[in-house]
Amino acid sequence: MSKPTITLNCDMGESYGHWKMGNDTEVMPLIDMANIACGFHASDPKTMANTIKLAIQYDVKIGAHPSYPDILGFGRRTIPMDSDELTYSLIYQVGALKAMCESFNSELSYIKPHGALYNDMVKDLSIFESVVDAASCFGVPLMMLAHPNTEPFLDIADRYEVPLLFEAFADRAYQDDGTLAPRNHQGAVHTEADVVINQVEQLVQHGRVETIDGQIISIDADTVCVHGDNPQALAILQELRDLIGD
Amino acid sequence: MSKPTITLNCDMGESYGHWKMGNDTEVMPLIDMANIACGFHASDPKTMANTIKLAIQYDVKIGAHPSYPDILGFGRRTIPMDSDELTYSLIYQVGALKAMCESFNSELSYIKPHGALYNDMVKDLSIFESVVDAASCFGVPLMMLAHPNTEPFLDIADRYEVPLLFEAFADRAYQDDGTLAPRNHQGAVHTEADVVINQVEQLVQHGRVETIDGQIISIDADTVCVHGDNPQALAILQELRDLIGD
Amino acid sequence: MSKPTITLNCDMGESYGHWKMGNDTEVMPLIDMANIACGFHASDPKTMANTIKLAIQYDVKIGAHPSYPDILGFGRRTIPMDSDELTYSLIYQVGALKAMCESFNSELSYIKPHGALYNDMVKDLSIFESVVDAASCFGVPLMMLAHPNTEPFLDIADRYEVPLLFEAFADRAYQDDGTLAPRNHQGAVHTEADVVINQVEQLVQHGRVETIDGQIISIDADTVCVHGDNPQALAILQELRDLIGD
Amino acid sequence: MSKPTITLNCDMGESYGHWKMGNDTEVMPLIDMANIACGFHASDPKTMANTIKLAIQYDVKIGAHPSYPDILGFGRRTIPMDSDELTYSLIYQVGALKAMCESFNSELSYIKPHGALYNDMVKDLSIFESVVDAASCFGVPLMMLAHPNTEPFLDIADRYEVPLLFEAFADRAYQDDGTLAPRNHQGAVHTEADVVINQVEQLVQHGRVETIDGQIISIDADTVCVHGDNPQALAILQELRDLIGD
Repeated sequence: MSKPTITLNCDMGESYGHWKMGNDTEVMPLIDMANIACGFHASDPKTMANTIKLAIQYDVKIGAHPSYPDILGFGRRTIPMDSDELTYSLIYQVGALKAMCESFNSELSYIKPHGALYNDMVKDLSIFESVVDAASCFGVPLMMLAHPNTEPFLDIADRYEVPLLFEAFADRAYQDDGTLAPRNHQGAVHTEADVVINQVEQLVQHGRVETIDGQIISIDADTVCVHGDNPQALAILQELRDLIGD
Repeated sequence: MSKPTITLNCDMGESYGHWKMGNDTEVMPLIDMANIACGFHASDPKTMANTIKLAIQYDVKIGAHPSYPDILGFGRRTIPMDSDELTYSLIYQVGALKAMCESFNSELSYIKPHGALYNDMVKDLSIFESVVDAASCFGVPLMMLAHPNTEPFLDIADRYEVPLLFEAFADRAYQDDGTLAPRNHQGAVHTEADVVINQVEQLVQHGRVETIDGQIISIDADTVCVHGDNPQALAILQELRDLIGD
Repeated sequence: MSKPTITLNCDMGESYGHWKMGNDTEVMPLIDMANIACGFHASDPKTMANTIKLAIQYDVKIGAHPSYPDILGFGRRTIPMDSDELTYSLIYQVGALKAMCESFNSELSYIKPHGALYNDMVKDLSIFESVVDAASCFGVPLMMLAHPNTEPFLDIADRYEVPLLFEAFADRAYQDDGTLAPRNHQGAVHTEADVVINQVEQLVQHGRVETIDGQIISIDADTVCVHGDNPQALAILQELRDLIGD
Repeated sequence: MSKPTITLNCDMGESYGHWKMGNDTEVMPLIDMANIACGFHASDPKTMANTIKLAIQYDVKIGAHPSYPDILGFGRRTIPMDSDELTYSLIYQVGALKAMCESFNSELSYIKPHGALYNDMVKDLSIFESVVDAASCFGVPLMMLAHPNTEPFLDIADRYEVPLLFEAFADRAYQDDGTLAPRNHQGAVHTEADVVINQVEQLVQHGRVETIDGQIISIDADTVCVHGDNPQALAILQELRDLIGD
C-alpha cells in the first residue's frame, strides 16, 4: 500500500545583512520545498542568492516567500495597502526572486505569502484576490492554509487560473474553525517533539488534526510547514523526514 | 541620403511614495526609450507599474534603470559592494522590473545603470564586469557612456555575450577624454536650449562633440540621453524630437 | 474685550533626500508654529536642520512632528505597534529633533503627531497614552485635534503632567461629531479660498464651525492648522495672517 | 604608585527588529561603558530602550554609538556625505539616544562613532571635524582610536572644546603605525584567549602593544574595547575584568 504523498516546506533565507536567522544549512537537506524570503520582510540579494544555491544543491523546490513591506516588523504586521499596490508589490518581489533563480539555471516553483499577509489573505477575499492576481503572472501555484472551507478561494483562483497548494502546520495549534491559534495565545506553538510528530502523523495518515480545544477536524493538506530554528527542531525534522519518506 | 538613426532616452519613474519627481506624462510621448527606476534609488512598485503603463501607451521601449541601494542619496553616491553582491543586487532589481513589464504583456528591452554606478562602471572594469554579469542573465543590451576607448568594455561584454548600446548626453558637458564633466563642475550641465540642441545636432549628424575646453572629439552614439525636469526642457525635447525624426 | 489669541501652524520640512515637498520658504514667514517632520514619515537630518534654520530666521516656534515609521506611506498608514514600542519610537524622533534645535541654540516648543498617528490617538485612548507618555519626557505641550469631548484626554494628560494644545483645521471639513471627514471622502478638503477663510473666521471669532452636513458645532481651538502646498494656498495663508493678526 | 585606571567598553544593542546580535545580557555586568547603537547601522527604538535599561541595571556608563546611515552594510561601508550632512546625521542619532537615556533618568556620557566612520575619522581630519562638531553639541567626550600622533586631533577637539577619550583594542592586531590591521587581513582579529589577555595586560601595565610585525609601540589608552560575541569571549572578558579590577 502506497503512503500518501505530502511534502515538507520551510521558511528559508531569513537572514538580513549582517544579522543571521535560521539553520538553513542543516535544514535544507531535510525538506522538499524552500520558501525563500524576497527582501521585504527579511533577506537581501546576496542572502537570496546563497539560499537559492543551497536549495539547488539539495534538489529542493524553490518558492517565493513575499511579504508586506516591513523589515522592522519582520512582515508580521498588517500594512494597509490598496489592492493594486499590493499586487504590484508582490510581482516586484516574486519577479526579483524568479530572475535570481533563472540566473542559476533554476526555476521558481510556487509562491507562499509570509506572515501577516499569509493570515490576512485567508480572512479577506479581496486581499486574497490581490495575491492571486500577482501569482497569475508567474504561472506557478499559490500556497495557502489548508482550510475547511476552500470553495471561495478556489473560485477566485480558478478565475485567474492559479493552482492552489494547501498547507498544514507541524508545530502550530489549530482552532476549531481550522485556522491557526494566534502566536500570542498560550499553547499556540507546539514545542514538544512528540506533539509535533503526532500532529504530522495524524495529518499525513488520516488527514485530520486535533484542535487546541480537543476537537478532531479534517485538514486536507498537500504540504506541511516545518520550522528549523533550534537544535531540537532539527531532530524533529529528521523524524518527520523519516515519517513522510523521501 | 538617409540620416543615421539615433534614439532619445530619458530617466523616468523617479517619484517615490508620496514624493513626485519629473514630468513623465509630458516627456513620454517625445522619447524612444524609458529608463525606469527599479526601487533602489527611486520608485516603488506602484510607481514602476504606472510608468510601465505610460511607456506602453506611447510605444516607448522599456529599460531597467538599476542603481546602488541608496534611496536617500538618489543613487548618486558610490556604495562599496563586493562583486557578487553588486551582481545579485542588479539581478534583483532588473528581475523585478522585468516581471512587472511581463505582467502588462510588455517586455524589458535593455538595461542602463543609474547615477554613481553608471559612472563607476566606466572607471573600473571590475565593476563593469559585475554589471555585465547581471545583464547577461536577461539577454538584453547594456547601455553605457559612448567612449573614445571602448575596446576593453567590448571585450568583457563579448565574453558574456551582452550587446552594448552607446549613449551620448544632450545637456552634459564633455571633457577632452570623452567622459562627462562632473555635476559639481562649473558648466557641467548645459541649460541654454541652443547649446543643447547644437550638441545633439553635432552628435547626430557628425558623430562629434565640442568639449568644455573647446576641443572637438568623436563620439559614436546609438542613443542620446535627454532630461525633462522643467518646462523649458520640454520645448528642447520637442526640438530634439523634430531634429532626429520619429 | 480682547479677541482670544489663536496661532497658525503648518506641517514643514517634509522633503526627503532629493525629493522636494511643500513651499517652506514662502510659508514660514506667514506662520507662528512649524510642525517639523522627524525622519519617520518624511525628512532627513539635513532637511531637518535647514527647516529649523528657516524657522529661527522668522522667529517661528518649532514643534516636533513625529510619525509611525512609514516613509513609503508618508505616515498615513496605521502601523501596528506595542504601547512601549510606540512610546520609544516617539522619544527617539522627538529627541533627535530637540537635539538639532539645541545645536542651533533654539528649542523644542511642542509636539504634534503626524498623519495616521494623529488620527489614531483621538480614536484610541491607549495610543493617546503612549503618545502622552513620550511627550512627558520633554516638558512641552502636546497638540491634538480640538474635540467636543476632551475630558478623557485631559485626564490622561494631567496624570502625565503634559499640557494639551487644541487644534482646528482651516481647510478640512468637519463631521457632526467634531472629527475630520476622512481624506478620501468627497469634500473632505476645502479648496476654495473663501470657504477656508470663512471657516477660520468662524473658528477665531465665534469658536464654532459648520460641519459637512450643515450643523454648527463648537470648536475651542488654540491654534489653526494651515497648508501651503500650492500658490493659491499662499494667498489664502496671507489672508488668514491678516485676519488673525501678528 | 597607583596603576593608571583603564575601563572596558563594548559595542552593545546591535540587534535589529527580529534579528538578535550579541550577548548583551551576559556582557553588560562585566563592562564599564556600553557603546549603544543608535538605529543607523543597527538597533531600533525598542532595542535602544532595552539596552539602556540593562546598562542602568549594572551601573554601566552609556555612550552613543552613531554610524553612517547603512543598516544593510552594518555601518562598515564608507557612505559619502557632505560635512554638514554628516554632522546633522550624528546630532540626530546622538540626540535620539540622549533623549531615551533621559526618559529613564539616566544620561549620555560619551560618543563613540561606529565602523567605517570610526576608521574614516582617523584617516581624514575633515571627517573628524564633522564628528567633533556634532559632539560639541552634547558636552560629552568623544572616543577615538589611541594614536601615536594625536596632536592634530587634539587641536581640532580643543577648538570645539570636546574632550577626547583614547581607546585601545583587546582583540585586534595593531600595525606599526599604531592603526588597526584591517578586518580582512590575516590575523587581524585575535581569537586565542591568552593573546587577547596578554595584549590588554601590556596595554594596562606598560602602555604598549606588540604589532602584527613584532614591533613594540606605545599606546596611551583611557579605555579598552572588548567584544562579547561568543561564549569564549565571555570567559576572556571575565579575566580582563579581574585583571583591570572594578
